[in-house]
Amino acid sequence: MPEPDIIGLIASQLSPAPKSVVVPAGEDDCAVVEWTKNEYLVVTTDMLHESTDFPQGTSARRMGWTCIAQSLSDMASMGAVPLYLVVAVGLPEFDRKFVKELSAGMNACAGKYGACIIGGDVDKHDEITLVSTGLGKAKKELLLRRRGARAGDLLCVTGNLGNAAAAMKIRESGVAVDEKIKRTLDRSLLEPRPRVPEGIELSKTKAVTSMTDISDGLAVSLGDLSRASGVGFEIYEDRIPVAKHVKKVAELTGSDVKELSIYYGGDFELLFTVQKNKIDKVKKLSTKITVIGGVIPKGLFMDSEKIKIRGYQHF
Amino acid sequence: MPEPDIIGLIASQLSPAPKSVVVPAGEDDCAVVEWTKNEYLVVTTDMLHESTDFPQGTSARRMGWTCIAQSLSDMASMGAVPLYLVVAVGLPEFDRKFVKELSAGMNACAGKYGACIIGGDVDKHDEITLVSTGLGKAKKELLLRRRGARAGDLLCVTGNLGNAAAAMKIRESGVAVDEKIKRTLDRSLLEPRPRVPEGIELSKTKAVTSMTDISDGLAVSLGDLSRASGVGFEIYEDRIPVAKHVKKVAELTGSDVKELSIYYGGDFELLFTVQKNKIDKVKKLSTKITVIGGVIPKGLFMDSEKIKIRGYQHF
Repeated sequence: MPEPDIIGLIASQLSPAPKSVVVPAGEDDCAVVEWTKNEYLVVTTDMLHESTDFPQGTSARRMGWTCIAQSLSDMASMGAVPLYLVVAVGLPEFDRKFVKELSAGMNACAGKYGACIIGGDVDKHDEITLVSTGLGKAKKELLLRRRGARAGDLLCVTGNLGNAAAAMKIRESGVAVDEKIKRTLDRSLLEPRPRVPEGIELSKTKAVTSMTDISDGLAVSLGDLSRASGVGFEIYEDRIPVAKHVKKVAELTGSDVKELSIYYGGDFELLFTVQKNKIDKVKKLSTKITVIGGVIPKGLFMDSEKIKIRGYQHF
Repeated sequence: MPEPDIIGLIASQLSPAPKSVVVPAGEDDCAVVEWTKNEYLVVTTDMLHESTDFPQGTSARRMGWTCIAQSLSDMASMGAVPLYLVVAVGLPEFDRKFVKELSAGMNACAGKYGACIIGGDVDKHDEITLVSTGLGKAKKELLLRRRGARAGDLLCVTGNLGNAAAAMKIRESGVAVDEKIKRTLDRSLLEPRPRVPEGIELSKTKAVTSMTDISDGLAVSLGDLSRASGVGFEIYEDRIPVAKHVKKVAELTGSDVKELSIYYGGDFELLFTVQKNKIDKVKKLSTKITVIGGVIPKGLFMDSEKIKIRGYQHF
C-alpha cells in the first residue's frame, strides 16, 4: 500500500486542524504552523530502523548522522531554516560505545547545518530504532510547498541522482570497484548531505514554485508534486544528472542506470519547479542544478513514455 | 542502567546549546526554547512499543490514546499548554481497521486536551512502535521546572497513586475483582488522563516551586526533583493517597500497597512542591491535591526510613 494512502487514512481520522495550522498532516514534507508575525514553524518527524533503513555494517555514528539528515532534508525541501531536533532512540541493549558514537553522529550532522539537538527519549527495543523530529522556521513569503507548480514551469534537481543506489549495488553484488569511488558512493548512502543551504537559497530566489526532497526516489517525488500541484511532468532521460562512476557501477553490476537514478531512491537531493523566465536566478546559485524537464497539464512522462510512480514501499 | 545516566551520556556528546535554548536535553520533562517575547515553546518526545509499554490485549484505540497522553503529561508537568503533536508509527503489517482505530484514539486524546495532531510518519517495523512528539507553549513567568524546590516547601501530588499498578496486578494474577472496579482501574492503566488543566492551573497559582509527572513512579520522580533542585524529601506513608479499591486489590493479590503506590509507576499524576505560606492557593483548585511530605536539605526518607530510587528501568 503506497504511503500517501496510509497517511491519508490516518489524516481522515483527525479532527479539522485549527486556523493556526497552515499545512496539516499528510500534505507536505513538514507540517507548518503559525510562529511569529513573519515566520512559520515547520515540524517533521521520521522513523528509521536498523533492518530496513541501514545497510548491514553501518556504523553507529553514521546511523545517528542519517537520522538527523532525514529531518533536515524534509525541512530543506520547504526552504526552512532548521533550528532544533529531538530524538527518540530504541536500543536492544545498552552499549556505552555505541550510544556515544550514535549521539556524536547526530550532533555532528545537526551542527553542520546550524541546528541543535535539544532533547530525547531512550527506550529498550528489539531493534535499533531512531525517530528524529525537527523544528525549523521559514519566512512566510518564502515557504515552499509541494503545491504551486504550474504548466510551463521548468523542472529541476540539485546534484546527481543514483549515487546511493550505486553504493547499494556495489554492496549487494560484491563487485570490485576502485576504493575511492566506493568510499565516495558509500558516503552518499550512509552519510547523506541534506540540501539545507540550497533549500534556503532556492526559496530566496522567489523563482521556485514548488519543491520536495527525493529521498524516496525521483518517480515517487514526481508523483507527490503532481498530486499536490494538480499538474503533470515530462522529463528527459538524457538530462538526468548521473555521475560517471554511477554509470560505471551500473555497467559492472548489470544494473539499469534509469532504475538507479529514477526509481531507487536514497539521494538527499531537492526536486523543484521554476518559473521559466526566472531560471537565470536559480542558475546563478553556486550549487549544481539541472533542468530535467518541465511541467505539463497532466500525466508523467519520460521521453514521451509514461512513468510509473514506484519506488521504495514500506507496505 | 538508570535512564538519567544514559540521557547524561548522550547529552555529554552534544555541542553546547545556543542561548535560545532555555532547557537543553536531559534536564527536564521537556526541552524549552524561546518562542515569542512572552512565551516559551516546550518540546517533548516519547517512544512506546507493544511488548514493554502496552499490556497484552490493549486495543489500538487505547494504544493511540496512551501515546499522546504521554507527551501531554510531560507538557503538563511544566505547566505548559499543549498545542501540536506529530507521531511516528511503526507497524508490522498494514491493517486498515487497526490504523483507523489507532489514529482515532490519538485524535481523541489530543482533542480532549485542546491539542491537535499535525503530522507524522509511517514505517514497517517488527513491533508496533509509537513515537509522539508534543509542542506546547508556556508563559515565561509561569514555566515550572524540576528545579526550584526549596527546603521548607510542601510536597504534593494530584489524584491517587497505585491505580495503574493495581490494574496490572489484577491482570497478572487473574484474581476475580468486581467488574466495575476492574474497568475503572483498567482505564487508569490503558487510557490515562494526563493532568493538563491541572498543570496549567498549578502554574498560574505562582505558589508552585517545582513540578514533574510521575509516570515512572513516585520514587523515581522524587529522585528527579531531588537531583534537579539539589534538595531532599521526606514523605509519610499514611499520607500517600491510595484509593480503597487499590488497597483491596493489594490484599487480594498479596501485594504491598507501598510497592504499588510508590515504586510501580504508570499513574499520570503530577508531583510538585509548594511554598508553605501559599498552600491555600493550591488547595483552592478543584482537583484533588494531597500534601504527602515536605522538602528537606538532603536525602529521601519515608517516615524517617531511607527511600531507594527505584522503579521501571529500561536497561
